[in-house]
Amino acid sequence: MNEETMLIKGGWVIPMTHRTVYERGAVWVKGGIIGGVFQEGEALPTVDRVVDATGCVVMPGLVNTHCHTPMSLFRGLADDMSLSVWLNDHIFPAEAAYINPGTVRAGALLSCAEMLLSGTTTVCDGYFYEEEVAEAVLIAGMRAVLGHGVIDFPAPGVPDPFENIATAVRFVEAWQHRSPLITPSIFCHSAFTCGEKTLTRAKEACRRLGVLFQIHTAETQDEVQTMREDRGISPYQLLDDLHLLDESTLLIHNVWMDESDIDLVARGGAMASHNPGSNTKLASGVSPVPRLLDHGIHVGLGTDGSASNNNLDLFGEMHLAAKLHKAYSLDPSVMDAWTVLEMATVEGAKALGLGGSIGSLHPGKRADIILVDMNTPHLTPVHNPVSNLVYAATGADVRDVFVDGRQVVKDGGLLTMDIKAVMDEVSRIAREVGRL
Amino acid sequence: MNEETMLIKGGWVIPMTHRTVYERGAVWVKGGIIGGVFQEGEALPTVDRVVDATGCVVMPGLVNTHCHTPMSLFRGLADDMSLSVWLNDHIFPAEAAYINPGTVRAGALLSCAEMLLSGTTTVCDGYFYEEEVAEAVLIAGMRAVLGHGVIDFPAPGVPDPFENIATAVRFVEAWQHRSPLITPSIFCHSAFTCGEKTLTRAKEACRRLGVLFQIHTAETQDEVQTMREDRGISPYQLLDDLHLLDESTLLIHNVWMDESDIDLVARGGAMASHNPGSNTKLASGVSPVPRLLDHGIHVGLGTDGSASNNNLDLFGEMHLAAKLHKAYSLDPSVMDAWTVLEMATVEGAKALGLGGSIGSLHPGKRADIILVDMNTPHLTPVHNPVSNLVYAATGADVRDVFVDGRQVVKDGGLLTMDIKAVMDEVSRIAREVGRL
Repeated sequence: MNEETMLIKGGWVIPMTHRTVYERGAVWVKGGIIGGVFQEGEALPTVDRVVDATGCVVMPGLVNTHCHTPMSLFRGLADDMSLSVWLNDHIFPAEAAYINPGTVRAGALLSCAEMLLSGTTTVCDGYFYEEEVAEAVLIAGMRAVLGHGVIDFPAPGVPDPFENIATAVRFVEAWQHRSPLITPSIFCHSAFTCGEKTLTRAKEACRRLGVLFQIHTAETQDEVQTMREDRGISPYQLLDDLHLLDESTLLIHNVWMDESDIDLVARGGAMASHNPGSNTKLASGVSPVPRLLDHGIHVGLGTDGSASNNNLDLFGEMHLAAKLHKAYSLDPSVMDAWTVLEMATVEGAKALGLGGSIGSLHPGKRADIILVDMNTPHLTPVHNPVSNLVYAATGADVRDVFVDGRQVVKDGGLLTMDIKAVMDEVSRIAREVGRL
Repeated sequence: MNEETMLIKGGWVIPMTHRTVYERGAVWVKGGIIGGVFQEGEALPTVDRVVDATGCVVMPGLVNTHCHTPMSLFRGLADDMSLSVWLNDHIFPAEAAYINPGTVRAGALLSCAEMLLSGTTTVCDGYFYEEEVAEAVLIAGMRAVLGHGVIDFPAPGVPDPFENIATAVRFVEAWQHRSPLITPSIFCHSAFTCGEKTLTRAKEACRRLGVLFQIHTAETQDEVQTMREDRGISPYQLLDDLHLLDESTLLIHNVWMDESDIDLVARGGAMASHNPGSNTKLASGVSPVPRLLDHGIHVGLGTDGSASNNNLDLFGEMHLAAKLHKAYSLDPSVMDAWTVLEMATVEGAKALGLGGSIGSLHPGKRADIILVDMNTPHLTPVHNPVSNLVYAATGADVRDVFVDGRQVVKDGGLLTMDIKAVMDEVSRIAREVGRL
């Protein structure tokens, strides 16, 4: 247990508890928990350690609500083609040949390094051999919601699809009480790759275990059209018919949905992950996020895996989310900087069911904190630090990162692993994949 | 005159002369000029200096085809509002109160620093007090096409609009033979802020002086609708009627154009600057760039000023250009990575009329070269260096920059100016602007 007390002081403190910036504020950390946020001039507690944040923004760590961390192995392997060709002709064959516990751990370690270095302190992941992802997350020292993949086909590590839910449940049971940094979950691939029985049984298991149910939904027009032709309903109507749209369900992508779908999601209380980088790169389309927000749905940002993005920098995702919807709606006031920054922090935390413990610098929450250095040409001047974060910063501007009060990035360097060894191992695996 | 000979060797050399990557290639520079590009194993010349580019991409410096460099002063001053409100209620008043030779130079210096550090070696700029921008460009050691602004209203430094063309011509004459790094030009603001007589006289002056004519065109739907209502024609028809659409005209934005407009531009031979960051942020819309490319029009990328973007990182612009059009057209094959990288280099150079001297590592061209460090978590593995550049890199990955054979950035640090002093001066000006 980390009992150190610490003050991070002197920067622009953006607590994300409300839309305020405290210039030359301070954040008090004690025992891995936020003790308080102070404005300039307020009396400060005596602490073990003071971190000088002059010239930096001090804010909650970013929350990535959707990723497949091991897929960094396939970054740049196949681009500029449709989701179906990309999946069937490139990604699935590469996964079948090269995904095993060792490659999953290497890819996940690389992704954790990339995320921490760019200010993401929590990731929601779904893949196979998820126990290896969990081990990588602990080595990296980040926070994660991890779902073992469920799909009604043979999959890496789950050759018999009849074992898919049992495997996912075993993962939850093994990790449910092992580390405060890991929150297990179950990840059903989609309503077109999982049958009704699988979806229902997976959600029943989630309810019994008290964990999040994640599912890709309405990512492509083809998926929605096929379901309408085959069954006469939308994916959201199917999920609603199966009673899956409750407050512990995370719907990922949500590109092709109409007003009645949005109503169903809002009524059920389900949450959403918006992945603009992946949705645009795969030409899936543009999710109607401003309408979801109008309905009070909690929407977080996600990068998706780096095979379809091709990076895990949530600053880039903020940037894209803020701009894309303006062009799409021809309304420059939608997705303003504060809204987007909330999606990347406090709303993302709520979308993962972690709104009570992370996402803002609220006293009593876990001390997941990042410092973003504004003292660079591209972030000068600072008329508005929130605007600079959303419209001009990148992950490379992140100076320091704390997870649960523990410093994991210092002066832009990762403290928790030998990143060169991880990069070498991933490059070695990639050379084999390239020979496929 | 720089007579040094140099080899940059060991990296992925991407000459942009054709779609090939030379692994462990080399680039030979002599006297500020590209001497040759070598594949692994070829005999290399003896040189004064060898730069080890192991683990880096070696490629032409990026070409930013549209910017208002002094507007870095207003970065983040006003966001999330329409172009007309942003201009009339925020930018024009700030310009009227604070734009003078000193502030223009400070803002331009900051922008040049930001661009060089992020791999842009050439910028095409248009603003007022443009002689101060020219001085800043020379201090920074970058290359630029610079146009003094022409508008039929009182403007900074040009209180009498009857003097607008004479002022722009004086700028061209003063700078036409002063430095090989500076190519002067004339920048007419738009067909809705300049009358027919002004447009015609400005273009006549460009023809007489042999320089580029730049103009914002069809940026917003409102602009095009108003012209159609007032005159029954599109902005492109007006420019064509005035004989302005020739091969020395750069049309900036081109968001609202139909097939007949595209035909007019293609037939005239005019060139285009695509600014996806600014067009999306201001909700102007999405330029039909894939159609322009189908017609053989040279299209470069531009950042626009950092008051409407809000940064000058062309890697971000590549990223957005590659993704935006895929989502907009629902076609994942449009704007593939090579096409976008060409827009940021060789096609951008052609769009500025500099295709014979920069934009690719072709023997005889000027040695404007950047090294991009791939040895980072977010650029590992390197299945495809072109994909990594377009979809995963940012300007922060640029390690070294050479302009005209002279090194201006080394190991991520700027060699040509005291960047801290420039940032302090811009921050001081910004505090005054913020009090407006």
